[in-house]
Amino acid sequence: MSTKYIQLSHGGGGLEMNKLIRGLFFEAFDNAILRSEEDAALLNLTGQTAFTTDSFTVSPLFFAGGDIGKLAIAGTVNDLAMVGAEPQYLSLGVIIEEGFPFDSLKTIVQSMATELKKSGAKIVCGDTKVVPKGCADGLFLNTTGVGRVIRPGISAKALQPGDAILVSRDIGRHGAAILMAREGLELESGLQSDCATLWGTVEQLLIHPFEIRAMRDATRGGLSAVLNEWAVASNVNIQVNEGDVPVADEVRGLCELYGFEPMDLANEGTFVVALPKSQADGALEVLKRFGHCEHAAIIGEVCEAPQGKVILNTPWGSRRYLDLPAGELLPRIC
Amino acid sequence: MSTKYIQLSHGGGGLEMNKLIRGLFFEAFDNAILRSEEDAALLNLTGQTAFTTDSFTVSPLFFAGGDIGKLAIAGTVNDLAMVGAEPQYLSLGVIIEEGFPFDSLKTIVQSMATELKKSGAKIVCGDTKVVPKGCADGLFLNTTGVGRVIRPGISAKALQPGDAILVSRDIGRHGAAILMAREGLELESGLQSDCATLWGTVEQLLIHPFEIRAMRDATRGGLSAVLNEWAVASNVNIQVNEGDVPVADEVRGLCELYGFEPMDLANEGTFVVALPKSQADGALEVLKRFGHCEHAAIIGEVCEAPQGKVILNTPWGSRRYLDLPAGELLPRIC
Repeated sequence: MSTKYIQLSHGGGGLEMNKLIRGLFFEAFDNAILRSEEDAALLNLTGQTAFTTDSFTVSPLFFAGGDIGKLAIAGTVNDLAMVGAEPQYLSLGVIIEEGFPFDSLKTIVQSMATELKKSGAKIVCGDTKVVPKGCADGLFLNTTGVGRVIRPGISAKALQPGDAILVSRDIGRHGAAILMAREGLELESGLQSDCATLWGTVEQLLIHPFEIRAMRDATRGGLSAVLNEWAVASNVNIQVNEGDVPVADEVRGLCELYGFEPMDLANEGTFVVALPKSQADGALEVLKRFGHCEHAAIIGEVCEAPQGKVILNTPWGSRRYLDLPAGELLPRIC
Repeated sequence: MSTKYIQLSHGGGGLEMNKLIRGLFFEAFDNAILRSEEDAALLNLTGQTAFTTDSFTVSPLFFAGGDIGKLAIAGTVNDLAMVGAEPQYLSLGVIIEEGFPFDSLKTIVQSMATELKKSGAKIVCGDTKVVPKGCADGLFLNTTGVGRVIRPGISAKALQPGDAILVSRDIGRHGAAILMAREGLELESGLQSDCATLWGTVEQLLIHPFEIRAMRDATRGGLSAVLNEWAVASNVNIQVNEGDVPVADEVRGLCELYGFEPMDLANEGTFVVALPKSQADGALEVLKRFGHCEHAAIIGEVCEAPQGKVILNTPWGSRRYLDLPAGELLPRIC
């Protein structure tokens, strides 16, 4: 590929597009289905199939702990993992702004290829569009995935009073990392996004006979959004002990500085699990075997009433509703 | 929905996004799987599954004969149909520019809902992102689809010498319609895009015992791109009789005016079929039962050599190679 910048012709459906697809995407994501070059990939799926989609418009494209490519693979793979499905096949839709540096595209594509190895999922079909300068902000990605459901019945509607709520690690890192990148901040601690593929960890949880009711990665809207959606979907009350929710000091500090709530900040490799209280310690033990989950914690429990509400018990003994976040949260975090 | 324009908060993962998703998308695409609200839709697929993705960045969003919504449904449904698969489930990824008129979004969503009825495919999962003003050009869509393969073996690699090449209607209408919309032209004839869901037509072809080798909708890169890809993939020569390729007078006129080749212009509801010559008349008869295929024609045949090349026989008795289009074709036609 001799060109340094993406041109409109790279999306035109002709010679240049063919070269870009073969020279870059086919090389990085190499597999027989992708190379079959039909209008659609042909898959042999068995059992129940999970199907999910995500578009990625994160700004900036590169941030501490990841980039839009890593995010696009981890994000869709994680959505499959959260319903107990083994990630199998992904599609990739790419919208590139004319003039985008070819080297940056290459770095992002390599980052995708690296992240795919963590779950074994394969990109089997794709689409490339180029829009004129000024019509997009660098690069947008869409990944859509299918996977085989290993454990049926995991559902936002399945929570029951008496369940414990676990979080897999300290919260808010992704939102904080994006905020830092956008504000040009550098912390001595080297705070990074939690962006990660969760399938390996989830697979280990599923090997054990835990009766997992629900799992959800706490992306946009953070922990607050997940818990509120669960409380409504299952018609239960969720009680959270604020003091038990792990938050890194740097994340807490950034939140105080910029007026954000750690509970509302996005995560990209942090998930919440609900399962019977009696199994909570066992699940915690499994989670803690994974480096990224060393701060996993039991943060609350599922109660009867008031239905559809999340209550936060503060360390000072007061109680308040934890609401679904509203208004302009940190935009374009994924 | 009281707001007239899309705001950043509609993509934030909080209250406003929830309202947009429930108030607009769930209402328009109503089905039980979509409303299940898990991180992934759960599907029961049987047999071989076709899987395909397309992003849509067409400009302008509305054009004679369609809009980006109709295009996004027809485009992905057609990619499934072209490998002999019945379109079943779609995902929808939406990237909206802040300030986009809510009414336009509603019109586009309605247009998608209408087009879905033509194949029976359902949107079962989705994702909504909003980017700040100036970071996208109004609206981009991604649709990714899965479908059950009804007729296995249809492939760009399956062409054989002795096959006939058919085109389902006159070519170039979509590219011409976009060009007109962009240049502010109005023709008396009311030239419209060919944008259409092809599943109904393809389903009828598949009911008959035609040995269909390959099918392809001639989108970006037009008829030239399809024929060149087939010639290379199947290692054959394709001979096309230029005089037999149906082109509407208005399309030909616009091409002459703007320096385009009808063969390179995009179509969004026109497909090419290869099948044994002895079955060509029968297939043509089936095609012509459909209003949009009344100009269907046998346009050429598959020969041995020179392999990988497409040869155009002109009405004046001369012959030339028909190459894969190159350079800046009409951009953002889909």
